[in-house]
Amino acid sequence: MFYLDKIHFLKHGYFIIKILNLQRFYKYIAKYTMNAELLTIGNEILIGQITNTNAVWMAQQLNMIGVSVVHMSSVADERAAILKAFEDARQRADIVLITGGLGPTKDDITKTTFCEYFKTELVIDENVLKDVTGFFSKRNKEVTEINRKQAEVPKGCLVIRNKNGTAPGMWMEKDNTIFVSMPGVPYEMQGIMTDDVIPEIKKRFKLPFIYHKTILTQGIGESSLAELISDWEDGLAEKEIGLAYLPSPGMVRLRLSSKGFNESELFHKIETEVDKVRPLIERYIYGYEEYGKDQPKIEEILGELLLKKGLKLGLAESCTGGYISHLITSVPGSSAYYNGCIVPYHNEFKHDLLKVDNSVFENNGAVSKECVMAMAKETLKAFKADVAIAVSGIAGPGGGTSEKPVGTTWIAVAYEDRIVPKQFVFGDNRLRNIQMTANAAMNMLRKLILKIED
Amino acid sequence: MFYLDKIHFLKHGYFIIKILNLQRFYKYIAKYTMNAELLTIGNEILIGQITNTNAVWMAQQLNMIGVSVVHMSSVADERAAILKAFEDARQRADIVLITGGLGPTKDDITKTTFCEYFKTELVIDENVLKDVTGFFSKRNKEVTEINRKQAEVPKGCLVIRNKNGTAPGMWMEKDNTIFVSMPGVPYEMQGIMTDDVIPEIKKRFKLPFIYHKTILTQGIGESSLAELISDWEDGLAEKEIGLAYLPSPGMVRLRLSSKGFNESELFHKIETEVDKVRPLIERYIYGYEEYGKDQPKIEEILGELLLKKGLKLGLAESCTGGYISHLITSVPGSSAYYNGCIVPYHNEFKHDLLKVDNSVFENNGAVSKECVMAMAKETLKAFKADVAIAVSGIAGPGGGTSEKPVGTTWIAVAYEDRIVPKQFVFGDNRLRNIQMTANAAMNMLRKLILKIED
Repeated sequence: MFYLDKIHFLKHGYFIIKILNLQRFYKYIAKYTMNAELLTIGNEILIGQITNTNAVWMAQQLNMIGVSVVHMSSVADERAAILKAFEDARQRADIVLITGGLGPTKDDITKTTFCEYFKTELVIDENVLKDVTGFFSKRNKEVTEINRKQAEVPKGCLVIRNKNGTAPGMWMEKDNTIFVSMPGVPYEMQGIMTDDVIPEIKKRFKLPFIYHKTILTQGIGESSLAELISDWEDGLAEKEIGLAYLPSPGMVRLRLSSKGFNESELFHKIETEVDKVRPLIERYIYGYEEYGKDQPKIEEILGELLLKKGLKLGLAESCTGGYISHLITSVPGSSAYYNGCIVPYHNEFKHDLLKVDNSVFENNGAVSKECVMAMAKETLKAFKADVAIAVSGIAGPGGGTSEKPVGTTWIAVAYEDRIVPKQFVFGDNRLRNIQMTANAAMNMLRKLILKIED
Repeated sequence: MFYLDKIHFLKHGYFIIKILNLQRFYKYIAKYTMNAELLTIGNEILIGQITNTNAVWMAQQLNMIGVSVVHMSSVADERAAILKAFEDARQRADIVLITGGLGPTKDDITKTTFCEYFKTELVIDENVLKDVTGFFSKRNKEVTEINRKQAEVPKGCLVIRNKNGTAPGMWMEKDNTIFVSMPGVPYEMQGIMTDDVIPEIKKRFKLPFIYHKTILTQGIGESSLAELISDWEDGLAEKEIGLAYLPSPGMVRLRLSSKGFNESELFHKIETEVDKVRPLIERYIYGYEEYGKDQPKIEEILGELLLKKGLKLGLAESCTGGYISHLITSVPGSSAYYNGCIVPYHNEFKHDLLKVDNSVFENNGAVSKECVMAMAKETLKAFKADVAIAVSGIAGPGGGTSEKPVGTTWIAVAYEDRIVPKQFVFGDNRLRNIQMTANAAMNMLRKLILKIED
């Protein structure tokens, strides 16, 4: 059985449809779909030397404008593999976004292979040559022969100038599929996508609206969460709402999504379901990801709360070693509510800088309620702060005992006249323990400020 | 024209070969290749909600044992797309490693689709059921109906038990291609790969040896580096050595690689080339990635140096907000050489905690040579340290002036009787500026200790 799969809306009211055999649930959604494929070219991806962060960014951007990413691939800097990937992608997608292999160095062959696929040749583009020359003269550097090659583009392509680097973007079409080749350097690719590719896609195609809303939870596992909302979840499929569980250290995000052409109807449908599920899991929810916005991180949610309440934050981090401070300060504008941090990585400095009494180390140890409470108290003073977080734990892999195994962590949060301590026992992975401690600590402070009891 | 592409070494001396049309350069290498494909299943990847970190880790592990990853794909939690991906992968690869879609929740359909592809059905595996029950009872939790479903596996598959979670791995074969399905949770997948999948691959196949060596550089751009080593690079192809440039904020890694069955010959070939290129770029090199080891991060290289010299480190971070401290403490055992950090996020605390004279703020500003030098000096005292790093800058996006634009950063490093300041002007991306500052600062300290002049 065949279903309608793709509609290309062309100029002057013409359109093209493609059909495909698809699962029942996707029938309705698929009708409105413009499909994109992301193709990454580079040995460095296949041997695992770098993580493909371009794909995640591009997928977010495309999703936001109603383009579905149906496939992502990574292939080597190798002619035959690239040609096959181009041809496979052409059959699957309406638009193929290609990154990588455009560097000035000799291992990069995307451009010549692009020419071969489109049966054309490389020619110098005078505008790009001007950009390349300008790029280097601005940095007081000579334009070399290698750099000059950056101005070569396939004859007949639409050249997209690169404001952040030297390799231009290139837009070509074949059998109603668009191919866009972009540099692999993330901020260069992002500039080209934002300024040119996304606006051009929006101009050319009539796109559906995709509405997502993600519920952010902390302190409950995936399967326990699933149990709590099982009955509610059963009713989603027939409303053509998708639900996904997205776990990360100490947290699970629940994403609801649906697609269509009536924006307000979609909005209403999803928000109704969010209202239904909220009471079932309220105590675990620390925030929501709204449509069209980046997913809010807990440091952003906490930051907004501090800003709104006019509270100043101070930190004392032992086992997390400055990670909470890094997260807090990764938010632009955090200096408005953040005063600073002390990382006392030995008892001596917990004593010198945070006035923890030496008897605490002798009687309770540095990983104890007494220690983090003393740290939090002095942090308020040292940073003239209204709220504070103090943590001390055994991140591992060494340092555990039978009484306090690796992963044992004490967190104290302070606000008004209260200092609230809590013990956690996380796992045995150092980085995960640091992340889970940071997330738990920021959420503890958020709850204390909002007076949400555990 | 056809070339030998794949050899499957089977039991009792039999083998299978496959042929493909390939580029000249890959002819020799391809002869010894066992090809792997990595397939990720999950809508969360395609809509850009999570980054595919599993692929990078698996690629590293496979590379290390001489298996080439020829393709990576990500598809949706959708039956038709998964079936097509299985079939495409079978044609391309000797082994297909699948992650994702095995969760206990309703959006995960990998297991039923796996059954459909292999024309089999789900049955309860008693050992897995025991594992699942044990997993929950250890955590004092009830086993729910949803959890029990985790013990269902395709009839006839080789079950790989999951020590870190509840979804088991599943190993199936079809037409001489191996399919292994694993959970998408990184540390669960990693446990299954390390304990079972990798040893099994090594047992079944005669694998070639891949030798990589990566030269780590800091403080020079990709194209300038390419110019410096252009003549040397021209000679690599005929020696069947691949070279890749891998840029990251403020750094470029140069990776040399070659493949074959004679380990010592490969080792000699690559090391000879490293010796040839070293004198051309010596002042930019901060380390090397050796074969079979993780790529050393600059915080690890600095940490080893501090440990060897018996030096204790203290930090004062303003614009980097604790990021350097986080990197230093992300290294297990860092407490042996790290004493701690102060993050004074306002002038007031630079004065209170690090004794920066108020006249410095008035006359020079907080982003100045005078400020970071004073911070470094007091950091040595506060943390009874032998070496110190102090940074102050404008990370952005706000806070820039025409005189000191966003990206302006002062770094001071202290060792013995010297405090060495240096100014940088990075770009306008907050996180990149933080990363570039951290990398530059750690390398400055490394060079000061080793008495390498800029």
